[in-house]
Amino acid sequence: MQNWQDYQKQHKDRFLNELLELLRIPSISARSEHKPDMLACAEVVKQRLLEAGVDKAEVYPTDGHPVVYGEKITDPSKPTVLVYGHYDVQPADPLELWHSGPFEPVIKDGKIYARGSADDKGQFYMHVKAFETMVRTGSLPTNVKFIIEGEEEIGSPNLARFVTNNKALLKADVILISDTAMLSLDTPSIDIGVRGLSYIEVEVTGPNRDLHSGVYGGAVANPITILAKMIASCHDENNHITIPGFYDDVVEATPAERELMAKAPYNEKEYMKELGVTSLWGEKGYSTNERTGIRPTLELNGIWGGYTGEGSKTVLPSKAFAKISARLVPNQKAGAITEKLLAYFTKIAPPGVTVKAQEHHGGEPYMTPIDSKAYKAAAKAIEATFHKSPIPVRGGGSIPICSLFEKELGIKIVFMGFGLDSDNLHSPNEKFDVVNFYKGIETIPYFHQFFAEA
Amino acid sequence: MQNWQDYQKQHKDRFLNELLELLRIPSISARSEHKPDMLACAEVVKQRLLEAGVDKAEVYPTDGHPVVYGEKITDPSKPTVLVYGHYDVQPADPLELWHSGPFEPVIKDGKIYARGSADDKGQFYMHVKAFETMVRTGSLPTNVKFIIEGEEEIGSPNLARFVTNNKALLKADVILISDTAMLSLDTPSIDIGVRGLSYIEVEVTGPNRDLHSGVYGGAVANPITILAKMIASCHDENNHITIPGFYDDVVEATPAERELMAKAPYNEKEYMKELGVTSLWGEKGYSTNERTGIRPTLELNGIWGGYTGEGSKTVLPSKAFAKISARLVPNQKAGAITEKLLAYFTKIAPPGVTVKAQEHHGGEPYMTPIDSKAYKAAAKAIEATFHKSPIPVRGGGSIPICSLFEKELGIKIVFMGFGLDSDNLHSPNEKFDVVNFYKGIETIPYFHQFFAEA
Repeated sequence: MQNWQDYQKQHKDRFLNELLELLRIPSISARSEHKPDMLACAEVVKQRLLEAGVDKAEVYPTDGHPVVYGEKITDPSKPTVLVYGHYDVQPADPLELWHSGPFEPVIKDGKIYARGSADDKGQFYMHVKAFETMVRTGSLPTNVKFIIEGEEEIGSPNLARFVTNNKALLKADVILISDTAMLSLDTPSIDIGVRGLSYIEVEVTGPNRDLHSGVYGGAVANPITILAKMIASCHDENNHITIPGFYDDVVEATPAERELMAKAPYNEKEYMKELGVTSLWGEKGYSTNERTGIRPTLELNGIWGGYTGEGSKTVLPSKAFAKISARLVPNQKAGAITEKLLAYFTKIAPPGVTVKAQEHHGGEPYMTPIDSKAYKAAAKAIEATFHKSPIPVRGGGSIPICSLFEKELGIKIVFMGFGLDSDNLHSPNEKFDVVNFYKGIETIPYFHQFFAEA
Repeated sequence: MQNWQDYQKQHKDRFLNELLELLRIPSISARSEHKPDMLACAEVVKQRLLEAGVDKAEVYPTDGHPVVYGEKITDPSKPTVLVYGHYDVQPADPLELWHSGPFEPVIKDGKIYARGSADDKGQFYMHVKAFETMVRTGSLPTNVKFIIEGEEEIGSPNLARFVTNNKALLKADVILISDTAMLSLDTPSIDIGVRGLSYIEVEVTGPNRDLHSGVYGGAVANPITILAKMIASCHDENNHITIPGFYDDVVEATPAERELMAKAPYNEKEYMKELGVTSLWGEKGYSTNERTGIRPTLELNGIWGGYTGEGSKTVLPSKAFAKISARLVPNQKAGAITEKLLAYFTKIAPPGVTVKAQEHHGGEPYMTPIDSKAYKAAAKAIEATFHKSPIPVRGGGSIPICSLFEKELGIKIVFMGFGLDSDNLHSPNEKFDVVNFYKGIETIPYFHQFFAEA
């Protein structure tokens, strides 16, 4: 029996090239014109699972983009690990800020630049290659199931039904997800929670058509001005969110937890420098790590209205739009927050405009215990390859399906993220360090080993 | 000698077809990709002037789009009328709201639908055809000069130098402009003033790249949120403009003038119905006509930032932008107001963002006396064809070059507008009523006659 390390050393170039091929498929779930790419990507993922050694793999159609499922059941008496990931990616705009094509992956300074490199193709593919390693070296100690979906970036609207209808198929002892980051290779960490999400779009309509801003300026409400006033009213002078009831269900972190968080390495000067800002901004009374981890937030994701082209146009527009999302913490409910957001924007609309507010998608916040067998196995696996004990941290992002997994399948999730916060997720020039990719592939078999032994 | 009316009746279809051809040229001055169309349009205008009977015509290059000049000097002892107009048009966006192509003119229900139909191709072309009528029927009582420029919609940045350098060429006794509206065919009116304009663009930059709104949401200033707060701060609860010093130089209209304005026909219910709003909006203490005529205003013309495509993207954008313009009244100075606007947005920027604010273009407010020979000739001409005395009104729009004309050439302007406020200037589905086009061509020769006789 060949050992893991040798097998991985021998095949490392192929592992990387396979990932690059996957990154060439523009599987943007939010854009309907990419439907064929989504199907193509799902088929490739299925093929790769089969090549890696699953007994069976299937592309399951949904009302949206398909789910890819694969499994290898070695022995029903052994523990089963369900690996969740997603093959869909965020839109690539603004394209002009990319240094190379978002779907033409390049490796530069040891980093793979491409949309989806870290979020999440590069990360779920570590599991495929770690699985291959264990299968090909005869060392797989668990049963393994893969569920790789195509709608994570749009809130997993169709995965819930798939999970509910396929509980037996998905039965497992733990869910393992690599779709988060660690602090750094020097300071490994494990996310113990993700924030929830509530995402809405607001449309403000003033006059029934675009008007000449000279002829009508001063006579009717300008929808951009009104929308700006509405947005401005969402945060008070301390940057607390003013939506009525927004904080009602928030479970405050304990002083002990806040004390522990304060110990995580954090250099504010470096943080600001890396983001190119001279000052940070956020809710008064909380540190930066707290504001991005244990506190809910409200962010403007997009705004548009009127003339946005070159030069000037003296128009008083008919409509203005905004995309707005909140990140939620335990024990906020995405549905309830969405209702509150929609009600707020509809209610504060002054006479002279009409407001349509609609939901885009949401997801519940999720916390995982750190005393479980699975968490301990993950921590031990990271220690085996990083030679340091990982720090438990709370991540700011969201993985909409987590709470549903727990509710429907009755099992806990462990987040083993190998990305970095600086990976430019959802931004131009998304990247994933090659060394992190390999480190993940190297670490994951240890998880299976320790989880099976525990 | 054939009389005007017969000549016009005989050639009316050709007059209209020539206008339609002019409207097919997408002469959008704000967009650099239309530079060839601008040149082509200028050449066509020159040709049409020659065909109409000018002695000479010329396309003068400038640092921007060319100026077309033409003249017919019948007798140096006769009064000279300088006709000003512009062949450039506003951008056509948003294209999806047009019922037919903006540059594929169609006539429906007696209206010519096309970008530029009323603003200003349809209106300056009335002068060309009225001139042709007088020349061909041997009844031209004046010398006529035409100056048709290509940069009115972007603030006439290069016309000033042309005027300054060509004072002798442009020497005249009155400037006649048809680039405004009248109340209706039943209630003819003459604009006695246009508002000035100050137009700026604001760019707010937060972090140095687009960020994941989960990972960084709550940590750094969101440029959209900041921009919205800045915009919201520009009007107080009474919709007064809060920019320091904004009203300093405003000359209040006299009670007598306001009383006269209040007599203009105005049906608020009809006005709101036509615009599709259930409530009007604007500065407290002033009527709608006052707010669009004698009061300065500040309007948002465009806003954009972050993700504006289909679906959702959880991004915390690096940048947000707005286009903002003020309409000015006597005795505000465009330059001073622009300075105040730029200073305001730069100054109120909170730490954590940087703001770049730049000027697009401006123009001074302009008022014309109603006791001049020229105004009286215009009023008499309108009475001759409309059989009603025109009401003097103050228009809300801007014609940037007016005050410069007066300063450099030492002559007054008369506005003879034949459009309607409902012509959708600067908006989708711009139109010009065929009957107004013909009415203008019919009325203009009377102006020349009465002005020459006075």
